[in-house]
Amino acid sequence: MATEYLHAVPHLTTALTGPLQHLEEHLLGHQGDIEQWLRSQWQETRAPFYASVDLRNAGFKLAPVDTNLFPAGFNNLGAAFMPLCVQAAQSAMEHYGPKVRNILLVPESHTRNLFYLESLASLQKILEAAGYHVRIGSLIADLKEPLSVTLPSGGNVVLEPLIREANRLRLGDFSPCFVLLNNDMSGGRPEILEHLDQPVVPPLAVGWSNRLKSSHFTHYRRVAGEFARLVAIDPWLIDPLFRNCGQIDFQQRIGEECLVTNVAEVLKQITEKYREYGIDQRPFVIVKSDAGTYGMNIMTVYGTDELRELNRKQRTKMARGKEGHHVSDVIVQEGVYTFETWGEPQATAEPVVYMIDRYVVGGFYRVHPGRGRDENLNTPGMSFRALAFEESCIQPDPTRAPDARPNRFYAYGVIARLALLAAAREIQEASLGG
Amino acid sequence: MATEYLHAVPHLTTALTGPLQHLEEHLLGHQGDIEQWLRSQWQETRAPFYASVDLRNAGFKLAPVDTNLFPAGFNNLGAAFMPLCVQAAQSAMEHYGPKVRNILLVPESHTRNLFYLESLASLQKILEAAGYHVRIGSLIADLKEPLSVTLPSGGNVVLEPLIREANRLRLGDFSPCFVLLNNDMSGGRPEILEHLDQPVVPPLAVGWSNRLKSSHFTHYRRVAGEFARLVAIDPWLIDPLFRNCGQIDFQQRIGEECLVTNVAEVLKQITEKYREYGIDQRPFVIVKSDAGTYGMNIMTVYGTDELRELNRKQRTKMARGKEGHHVSDVIVQEGVYTFETWGEPQATAEPVVYMIDRYVVGGFYRVHPGRGRDENLNTPGMSFRALAFEESCIQPDPTRAPDARPNRFYAYGVIARLALLAAAREIQEASLGG
Repeated sequence: MATEYLHAVPHLTTALTGPLQHLEEHLLGHQGDIEQWLRSQWQETRAPFYASVDLRNAGFKLAPVDTNLFPAGFNNLGAAFMPLCVQAAQSAMEHYGPKVRNILLVPESHTRNLFYLESLASLQKILEAAGYHVRIGSLIADLKEPLSVTLPSGGNVVLEPLIREANRLRLGDFSPCFVLLNNDMSGGRPEILEHLDQPVVPPLAVGWSNRLKSSHFTHYRRVAGEFARLVAIDPWLIDPLFRNCGQIDFQQRIGEECLVTNVAEVLKQITEKYREYGIDQRPFVIVKSDAGTYGMNIMTVYGTDELRELNRKQRTKMARGKEGHHVSDVIVQEGVYTFETWGEPQATAEPVVYMIDRYVVGGFYRVHPGRGRDENLNTPGMSFRALAFEESCIQPDPTRAPDARPNRFYAYGVIARLALLAAAREIQEASLGG
Repeated sequence: MATEYLHAVPHLTTALTGPLQHLEEHLLGHQGDIEQWLRSQWQETRAPFYASVDLRNAGFKLAPVDTNLFPAGFNNLGAAFMPLCVQAAQSAMEHYGPKVRNILLVPESHTRNLFYLESLASLQKILEAAGYHVRIGSLIADLKEPLSVTLPSGGNVVLEPLIREANRLRLGDFSPCFVLLNNDMSGGRPEILEHLDQPVVPPLAVGWSNRLKSSHFTHYRRVAGEFARLVAIDPWLIDPLFRNCGQIDFQQRIGEECLVTNVAEVLKQITEKYREYGIDQRPFVIVKSDAGTYGMNIMTVYGTDELRELNRKQRTKMARGKEGHHVSDVIVQEGVYTFETWGEPQATAEPVVYMIDRYVVGGFYRVHPGRGRDENLNTPGMSFRALAFEESCIQPDPTRAPDARPNRFYAYGVIARLALLAAAREIQEASLGG
């Protein structure tokens, strides 16, 4: 059968509707090799429990720019994806044996961010539907009683105070066999979660208090290299260049020269690649904290002059991370244009792909009408547009034949899974290291 | 969260729309126990690669009446279920190691049954989408060249001649690592499939030339008993009574007394159960071949007189099985009324549930306007009505809240998986036995 029939990842609508780009076609054409290779990789390294990956599609280049190991946004996937999520969650939980029955979900300590709490409720629903008892244990310090929050969707979430006895966590009389973290630990590793008898997944060692983006992208570079050899492409087509600097204090202007040097170097490398491929775009880099952010401290830079000319306000912004931490390590990453837009008037869009275990379970577009195609979209003003299953998939039209539309989302699912594999190796390394 | 939120199996529409029956409510209320128990069962006994189960829902009773280990009808599931099928197929194939890449699919030897070939094309598509190369090797004796059959849906299937070299099968230069049977072997175990180096799944030993319905239902009785203890119900509510006879030759009227005795005994047991539960229905039994059938040789019997009064035509029909085999062993199974109907004017309907690996991946209704609710519906004149995901699931309506509709399809998914577990034990036993 022709490759157009195939879809190893769900066949979803994408914002781009023009002809397939060369890279997309190439990946669709190598599906057999790609899926077999991924299968063997998951045998070597267990996939993370879950992850979401932000992608940027510049047409000539398709690359991950952020991999979240504690994903929120499950509520944006849409109810049609729940069966896929449930099945994948059943598969993910299988690694922990048949006896696990009670899952303790440890979320971010937000009580007013209803978007986050909607996602949390969706995640709880997925795990319950997979056949588990799921309760939510909050890290909120002064929480003494269960706190029920009513959600705009009509449901509610109940946050309960965590109780630790020796090396076990419980909530009231609820004794969990498994702790699932949905807290990225930007504020540090919570003492109450250390050295538990219960498995803690993902491990504390990959919280943002330990994890560095540069470590993830170092793993990703290796994965992309192996993959590029497999399908005979230039790894640059799927891998954003990056360099990391040592400690930088933007307010004190310490470490700035290293940053300038690295920005200049990455811009030079991009310029060479653009020349090689005849790409008529202006190279740019993204400067961001090497540890986790909530989309803060992210700067688009076209030249080193901009760095020298940062004003006080910009410096203050770069110096402040999530939960008040100072920016220290900085990563300079090749900027990847997104050529995807959504709606009329056109808003800049980037795909976000969700995975549970080794399965792609859905995705959506992050859309920002106030941001350009060279900017970070994960900022206030963004919204989410659910991806739907391709119409031809829901209502097959025999006269159009199944090959009518190639699954262009397939390429997104491949690149997202390469980032997932990089994260898997990162987790393995972190777990071995402590 | 309330149990109404949960759906460990896809939330599908059902023909019944009235209030939940007691049994359905009971199963929904014990979802945690049920799912945990099933998980531990799959650790002990690997789920079959795939199966479809015919159910009958009499309201007071919900029971499997046929379990097909070589399912057709994948084309009836509808394209919306393909992502679930693909994910489950990836999970199923994982048992055979990461190196498997080429799958040989061995179908029934039908070339004109376009419904079957549509199902075969759907199955091929699912496996291809899971990331495998799939070609179809036919057992048709005089096939010398690949035969391409164009399908009403617009696709086509290519049946290729099987070539055996020593203990390996190939098709031209296509060397498969895995042989998936979609042929129930009613006509006997094909010599060409014996003692292969490649894994053959499901094993030849569970083809209809070896398998007996009474063996399946003996396993099912044990599974139903264990399950009934778990959720504290009378196993009869989910288990059709049955007895099997020895050899019967309807034309020669040999073995008839045994049949009459068994029919009388099963009718008596049903009558007692109906009295116990105050059910105001007339007990009946189904008499059918203990080996596989294509819905032939199936008789609805209300009393032993009917058996004695069989005319020549009826005897001839009972004596003829699929591919011309004589009926020998006969099973007498409690008749389960189906109280489900479809459409206006109402046609009798029974649900068919599809599973790949241990996952429920979809289902449909078999509908027959010319048959009563006490009759076998798997006969000419039947048609199929796809089940859809519940509307509330595709387009969530926040004002209705997620608990608006309990997933009544859940009960079907549970009973179907009990039959799947019985089949898994049957396969294990058959594999050990040779």
